Amino acid sequence: MDDDVTMVRIYLHEADHGRRKTLMQEILNLLADQHRVQGVVVFRGIAGLGVGGEVRASDLLRLNVDLPVVIEFFDQPTVVDAVLGTLDGMVPKGHIIAWRVGRR
Amino acid sequence: MDDDVTMVRIYLHEADHGRRKTLMQEILNLLADQHRVQGVVVFRGIAGLGVGGEVRASDLLRLNVDLPVVIEFFDQPTVVDAVLGTLDGMVPKGHIIAWRVGRR
Amino acid sequence: MDDDVTMVRIYLHEADHGRRKTLMQEILNLLADQHRVQGVVVFRGIAGLGVGGEVRASDLLRLNVDLPVVIEFFDQPTVVDAVLGTLDGMVPKGHIIAWRVGRR
Repeated sequence: MDDDVTMVRIYLHEADHGRRKTLMQEILNLLADQHRVQGVVVFRGIAGLGVGGEVRASDLLRLNVDLPVVIEFFDQPTVVDAVLGTLDGMVPKGHIIAWRVGRR
Repeated sequence: MDDDVTMVRIYLHEADHGRRKTLMQEILNLLADQHRVQGVVVFRGIAGLGVGGEVRASDLLRLNVDLPVVIEFFDQPTVVDAVLGTLDGMVPKGHIIAWRVGRR
Repeated sequence: MDDDVTMVRIYLHEADHGRRKTLMQEILNLLADQHRVQGVVVFRGIAGLGVGGEVRASDLLRLNVDLPVVIEFFDQPTVVDAVLGTLDGMVPKGHIIAWRVGRR
Protein backbone atom coordinates (compact mmCIF):
# COMPACT_ATOMS: atom_id res chain seq x y z
CA MET A 1 0.00 0.00 0.00
CA ASP A 2 1.20 3.53 -0.74
CA ASP A 3 0.27 5.32 2.49
CA ASP A 4 -1.71 5.12 5.74
CA VAL A 5 -4.95 7.00 6.10
CA THR A 6 -7.77 7.02 8.65
CA MET A 7 -11.17 5.66 7.64
CA VAL A 8 -14.23 7.11 9.39
CA ARG A 9 -17.89 6.06 9.49
CA ILE A 10 -20.55 8.32 11.00
CA TYR A 11 -23.88 6.70 11.93
CA LEU A 12 -27.01 8.84 11.58
CA HIS A 13 -30.74 8.46 11.09
CA GLU A 14 -32.43 10.29 8.25
CA ALA A 15 -34.62 12.21 10.66
CA ASP A 16 -31.60 13.74 12.43
CA HIS A 17 -31.74 17.52 12.35
CA GLY A 18 -29.13 20.12 13.01
CA ARG A 19 -30.22 23.72 13.00
CA ARG A 20 -32.12 24.38 9.78
CA LYS A 21 -30.69 21.65 7.54
CA THR A 22 -30.50 17.92 8.04
CA LEU A 23 -27.47 16.78 9.97
CA MET A 24 -26.28 14.76 7.00
CA GLN A 25 -26.22 17.83 4.77
CA GLU A 26 -24.46 19.90 7.44
CA ILE A 27 -21.74 17.28 7.79
CA LEU A 28 -21.27 17.00 4.01
CA ASN A 29 -20.97 20.79 3.74
CA LEU A 30 -18.37 20.81 6.51
CA LEU A 31 -16.38 18.02 4.85
CA ALA A 32 -16.47 19.77 1.46
CA ASP A 33 -15.99 23.42 2.46
CA GLN A 34 -13.79 23.39 5.52
CA HIS A 35 -11.68 20.31 5.10
CA ARG A 36 -11.74 19.25 1.43
CA VAL A 37 -11.86 15.65 2.67
CA GLN A 38 -11.27 12.89 0.13
CA GLY A 39 -13.28 9.77 -0.49
CA VAL A 40 -16.65 10.81 0.96
CA VAL A 41 -19.55 8.41 0.28
CA VAL A 42 -23.00 8.32 1.94
CA PHE A 43 -24.85 5.03 2.27
CA ARG A 44 -28.47 4.39 3.26
CA GLY A 45 -29.23 1.14 5.05
CA ILE A 46 -32.37 -0.95 4.47
CA ALA A 47 -32.86 -1.54 8.20
CA GLY A 48 -31.33 -0.72 11.57
CA LEU A 49 -31.89 -1.13 15.30
CA GLY A 50 -33.16 1.94 17.07
CA VAL A 51 -32.24 3.05 20.57
CA GLY A 52 -34.85 0.87 22.24
CA GLY A 53 -33.95 -2.17 20.12
CA GLU A 54 -36.81 -1.82 17.65
CA VAL A 55 -36.12 -2.65 14.02
CA ARG A 56 -36.52 0.25 11.60
CA ALA A 57 -36.94 -1.04 8.07
CA SER A 58 -38.28 0.01 4.70
CA ASP A 59 -41.00 -1.91 2.93
CA LEU A 60 -43.29 -1.37 0.00
CA LEU A 61 -46.13 0.13 2.01
CA ARG A 62 -44.09 2.60 3.97
CA LEU A 63 -41.82 5.28 2.62
CA ASN A 64 -38.16 5.19 3.62
CA VAL A 65 -38.82 6.82 6.98
CA ASP A 66 -35.92 7.33 9.37
CA LEU A 67 -33.61 4.74 7.87
CA PRO A 68 -30.00 4.59 9.00
CA VAL A 69 -27.52 6.66 7.00
CA VAL A 70 -23.76 6.18 7.15
CA ILE A 71 -21.29 8.84 6.00
CA GLU A 72 -17.93 7.28 5.17
CA PHE A 73 -14.72 9.14 4.35
CA PHE A 74 -10.95 8.71 4.56
CA ASP A 75 -8.00 11.08 4.58
CA GLN A 76 -4.64 11.79 6.17
CA PRO A 77 -4.81 11.22 9.93
CA THR A 78 -4.12 14.90 10.68
CA VAL A 79 -7.00 15.99 8.42
CA VAL A 80 -9.33 13.45 10.05
CA ASP A 81 -8.35 14.61 13.56
CA ALA A 82 -9.31 18.17 12.62
CA VAL A 83 -12.62 17.01 11.13
CA LEU A 84 -13.51 14.92 14.19
CA GLY A 85 -12.84 17.90 16.45
CA THR A 86 -15.36 19.93 14.47
CA LEU A 87 -17.95 17.13 14.48
CA ASP A 88 -17.93 16.67 18.27
CA GLY A 89 -20.74 19.10 18.94
CA MET A 90 -22.81 17.97 15.96
CA VAL A 91 -22.98 14.18 16.24
CA PRO A 92 -24.27 12.27 19.31
CA LYS A 93 -21.47 10.63 21.28
CA GLY A 94 -20.65 7.06 20.30
CA HIS A 95 -21.76 7.45 16.68
CA ILE A 96 -18.35 7.92 15.03
CA ILE A 97 -16.02 5.01 14.28
CA ALA A 98 -12.44 5.36 12.99
CA TRP A 99 -9.53 3.06 12.16
CA ARG A 100 -6.23 3.04 10.23
CA VAL A 101 -6.14 1.59 6.72
CA GLY A 102 -3.69 1.45 3.83
CA ARG A 103 -4.43 3.41 0.67
CA ARG A 104 -3.19 2.66 -2.82
CA MET B 1 -11.02 8.32 20.16
CA ASP B 2 -12.91 7.61 23.36
CA ASP B 3 -12.80 3.79 23.43
CA ASP B 4 -12.07 0.63 21.45
CA VAL B 5 -14.89 -1.46 20.09
CA THR B 6 -15.15 -4.37 17.68
CA MET B 7 -16.78 -3.81 14.28
CA VAL B 8 -18.50 -6.80 12.66
CA ARG B 9 -19.87 -7.39 9.14
CA ILE B 10 -21.99 -10.47 8.35
CA TYR B 11 -22.38 -11.39 4.67
CA LEU B 12 -25.69 -12.97 3.62
CA HIS B 13 -27.84 -13.41 0.54
CA GLU B 14 -31.47 -12.34 0.66
CA ALA B 15 -32.64 -15.86 -0.05
CA ASP B 16 -30.87 -17.26 3.03
CA HIS B 17 -33.32 -19.01 5.32
CA GLY B 18 -33.06 -20.08 8.90
CA ARG B 19 -35.93 -22.10 10.31
CA ARG B 20 -39.16 -20.23 9.52
CA LYS B 21 -37.87 -16.67 9.20
CA THR B 22 -35.22 -15.24 6.94
CA LEU B 23 -31.73 -15.51 8.39
CA MET B 24 -31.40 -11.72 8.33
CA GLN B 25 -34.48 -11.29 10.51
CA GLU B 26 -33.33 -14.01 12.92
CA ILE B 27 -29.95 -12.32 13.36
CA LEU B 28 -31.54 -8.89 13.92
CA ASN B 29 -33.88 -10.36 16.54
CA LEU B 30 -30.91 -11.98 18.30
CA LEU B 31 -28.94 -8.74 18.26
CA ALA B 32 -31.90 -6.75 19.62
CA ASP B 33 -33.35 -9.15 22.16
CA GLN B 34 -30.44 -11.10 23.55
CA HIS B 35 -27.53 -8.74 23.29
CA ARG B 36 -28.89 -5.17 22.95
CA VAL B 37 -26.04 -4.54 20.49
CA GLN B 38 -25.36 -0.95 19.45
CA GLY B 39 -24.89 0.47 16.01
CA VAL B 40 -26.68 -2.16 13.92
CA VAL B 41 -27.21 -1.26 10.25
CA VAL B 42 -28.25 -3.54 7.36
CA PHE B 43 -27.08 -2.77 3.83
CA ARG B 44 -28.20 -4.30 0.53
CA GLY B 45 -25.65 -4.48 -2.27
CA ILE B 46 -26.46 -3.87 -5.93
CA ALA B 47 -24.38 -6.85 -7.07
CA GLY B 48 -22.22 -9.64 -5.70
CA LEU B 49 -20.24 -12.70 -6.76
CA GLY B 50 -21.93 -16.00 -6.00
CA VAL B 51 -20.20 -19.20 -4.95
CA GLY B 52 -19.44 -20.25 -8.52
CA GLY B 53 -18.20 -16.82 -9.50
CA GLU B 54 -21.38 -15.71 -11.23
CA VAL B 55 -22.44 -12.07 -10.85
CA ARG B 56 -25.75 -11.52 -9.09
CA ALA B 57 -27.06 -8.07 -9.89
CA SER B 58 -30.28 -6.11 -9.94
CA ASP B 59 -31.57 -4.50 -13.08
CA LEU B 60 -34.77 -2.94 -14.25
CA LEU B 61 -36.21 -6.12 -15.74
CA ARG B 62 -35.56 -8.34 -12.77
CA LEU B 63 -36.67 -7.84 -9.22
CA ASN B 64 -34.05 -7.64 -6.52
CA VAL B 65 -33.62 -11.41 -6.30
CA ASP B 66 -31.00 -12.87 -4.00
CA LEU B 67 -28.88 -9.74 -3.68
CA PRO B 68 -26.12 -9.62 -1.08
CA VAL B 69 -27.08 -8.26 2.32
CA VAL B 70 -24.54 -7.12 4.92
CA ILE B 71 -25.41 -6.73 8.61
CA GLU B 72 -22.97 -4.37 10.31
CA PHE B 73 -22.72 -3.68 14.05
CA PHE B 74 -20.20 -2.61 16.66
CA ASP B 75 -19.99 -2.95 20.44
CA GLN B 76 -17.65 -3.69 23.33
CA PRO B 77 -15.36 -6.62 22.47
CA THR B 78 -16.87 -8.80 25.23
CA VAL B 79 -20.40 -8.21 23.91
CA VAL B 80 -19.27 -9.00 20.35
CA ASP B 81 -17.56 -12.22 21.48
CA ALA B 82 -20.82 -13.37 23.06
CA VAL B 83 -22.78 -12.50 19.91
CA LEU B 84 -20.35 -14.32 17.61
CA GLY B 85 -20.61 -17.44 19.77
CA THR B 86 -24.38 -17.41 19.28
CA LEU B 87 -24.11 -16.82 15.53
CA ASP B 88 -21.78 -19.77 14.89
CA GLY B 89 -24.53 -22.26 14.14
CA MET B 90 -26.61 -19.78 12.15
CA VAL B 91 -24.20 -18.28 9.61
CA PRO B 92 -22.09 -20.30 7.12
CA LYS B 93 -18.42 -20.42 8.07
CA GLY B 94 -16.28 -17.68 6.56
CA HIS B 95 -19.09 -15.15 6.31
CA ILE B 96 -18.32 -13.05 9.41
CA ILE B 97 -15.58 -10.41 9.48
CA ALA B 98 -14.43 -8.50 12.58
CA TRP B 99 -11.78 -5.92 13.48
CA ARG B 100 -10.93 -3.39 16.21
CA VAL B 101 -11.87 0.25 15.72
CA GLY B 102 -11.93 3.41 17.82
CA ARG B 103 -15.27 4.94 18.79
CA ARG B 104 -15.95 8.56 19.63
CA MET C 1 -11.61 -15.53 14.86
CA ASP C 2 -10.53 -18.40 12.61
CA ASP C 3 -8.07 -16.62 10.29
CA ASP C 4 -6.75 -13.27 9.09
CA VAL C 5 -7.79 -11.92 5.73
CA THR C 6 -7.43 -8.59 3.95
CA MET C 7 -10.52 -6.45 3.37
CA VAL C 8 -10.53 -4.15 0.34
CA ARG C 9 -12.82 -1.31 -0.75
CA ILE C 10 -12.54 0.23 -4.23
CA TYR C 11 -14.18 3.65 -4.75
CA LEU C 12 -15.63 4.37 -8.19
CA HIS C 13 -18.26 6.55 -9.82
CA GLU C 14 -20.93 4.93 -11.98
CA ALA C 15 -19.81 6.90 -14.99
CA ASP C 16 -16.27 5.45 -14.82
CA HIS C 17 -15.35 3.72 -18.04
CA GLY C 18 -12.61 1.30 -18.92
CA ARG C 19 -12.24 0.28 -22.51
CA ARG C 20 -15.64 -0.89 -23.75
CA LYS C 21 -17.32 -1.91 -20.50
CA THR C 22 -17.88 0.03 -17.32
CA LEU C 23 -14.96 -0.11 -14.93
CA MET C 24 -17.14 -1.75 -12.31
CA GLN C 25 -18.00 -4.64 -14.64
CA GLU C 26 -14.34 -5.03 -15.67
CA ILE C 27 -13.24 -5.26 -12.06
CA LEU C 28 -15.98 -7.80 -11.21
CA ASN C 29 -14.99 -9.94 -14.19
CA LEU C 30 -11.35 -9.83 -13.09
CA LEU C 31 -12.26 -10.79 -9.53
CA ALA C 32 -14.45 -13.68 -10.69
CA ASP C 33 -12.42 -15.07 -13.58
CA GLN C 34 -8.79 -14.50 -12.70
CA HIS C 35 -8.76 -14.62 -8.93
CA ARG C 36 -11.93 -16.40 -7.72
CA VAL C 37 -12.02 -13.84 -4.89
CA GLN C 38 -14.40 -14.51 -2.01
CA GLY C 39 -16.87 -12.17 -0.42
CA VAL C 40 -17.39 -9.65 -3.24
CA VAL C 41 -20.24 -7.15 -2.72
CA VAL C 42 -20.95 -3.93 -4.66
CA PHE C 43 -22.66 -1.01 -2.92
CA ARG C 44 -24.13 2.17 -4.41
CA GLY C 45 -24.06 5.29 -2.29
CA ILE C 46 -26.87 7.85 -2.16
CA ALA C 47 -24.44 10.78 -2.30
CA GLY C 48 -20.74 11.56 -2.51
CA LEU C 49 -18.27 14.41 -2.81
CA GLY C 50 -16.77 14.85 -6.25
CA VAL C 51 -13.24 15.93 -7.02
CA GLY C 52 -14.05 19.63 -6.78
CA GLY C 53 -15.97 19.20 -3.54
CA GLU C 54 -19.42 19.29 -5.12
CA VAL C 55 -22.09 16.98 -3.69
CA ARG C 56 -23.37 14.37 -6.10
CA ALA C 57 -26.70 13.02 -4.87
CA SER C 58 -29.81 11.27 -6.11
CA ASP C 59 -33.23 12.81 -5.76
CA LEU C 60 -36.67 12.21 -7.19
CA LEU C 61 -36.27 14.59 -10.10
CA ARG C 62 -32.91 13.34 -11.26
CA LEU C 63 -31.98 9.82 -12.23
CA ASN C 64 -29.20 8.13 -10.33
CA VAL C 65 -26.48 9.78 -12.39
CA ASP C 66 -22.86 9.22 -11.49
CA LEU C 67 -23.40 8.06 -7.92
CA PRO C 68 -20.51 6.60 -5.99
CA VAL C 69 -20.07 2.83 -6.19
CA VAL C 70 -17.93 0.82 -3.78
CA ILE C 71 -16.69 -2.68 -4.57
CA GLU C 72 -15.85 -4.56 -1.38
CA PHE C 73 -14.13 -7.95 -1.12
CA PHE C 74 -11.94 -9.96 1.23
CA ASP C 75 -9.59 -12.91 0.81
CA GLN C 76 -6.24 -14.34 1.88
CA PRO C 77 -3.58 -11.61 1.90
CA THR C 78 -1.59 -13.30 -0.90
CA VAL C 79 -4.68 -13.43 -3.14
CA VAL C 80 -5.46 -9.77 -2.40
CA ASP C 81 -1.88 -8.71 -3.21
CA ALA C 82 -2.17 -10.40 -6.61
CA VAL C 83 -5.52 -8.73 -7.27
CA LEU C 84 -4.24 -5.27 -6.30
CA GLY C 85 -1.29 -5.67 -8.66
CA THR C 86 -3.72 -6.30 -11.51
CA LEU C 87 -5.94 -3.37 -10.54
CA ASP C 88 -3.14 -0.82 -10.53
CA GLY C 89 -3.55 0.23 -14.14
CA MET C 90 -7.35 0.17 -14.01
CA VAL C 91 -8.27 2.24 -10.95
CA PRO C 92 -7.16 5.86 -10.34
CA LYS C 93 -4.48 6.15 -7.66
CA GLY C 94 -5.77 6.70 -4.15
CA HIS C 95 -9.08 4.93 -4.72
CA ILE C 96 -8.28 1.56 -3.12
CA ILE C 97 -8.33 1.02 0.65
CA ALA C 98 -7.19 -2.17 2.41
CA TRP C 99 -6.79 -3.41 5.98
CA ARG C 100 -6.43 -6.66 7.96
CA VAL C 101 -9.48 -8.24 9.56
CA GLY C 102 -10.35 -11.50 11.27
CA ARG C 103 -12.67 -13.95 9.55
CA ARG C 104 -14.89 -16.55 11.21
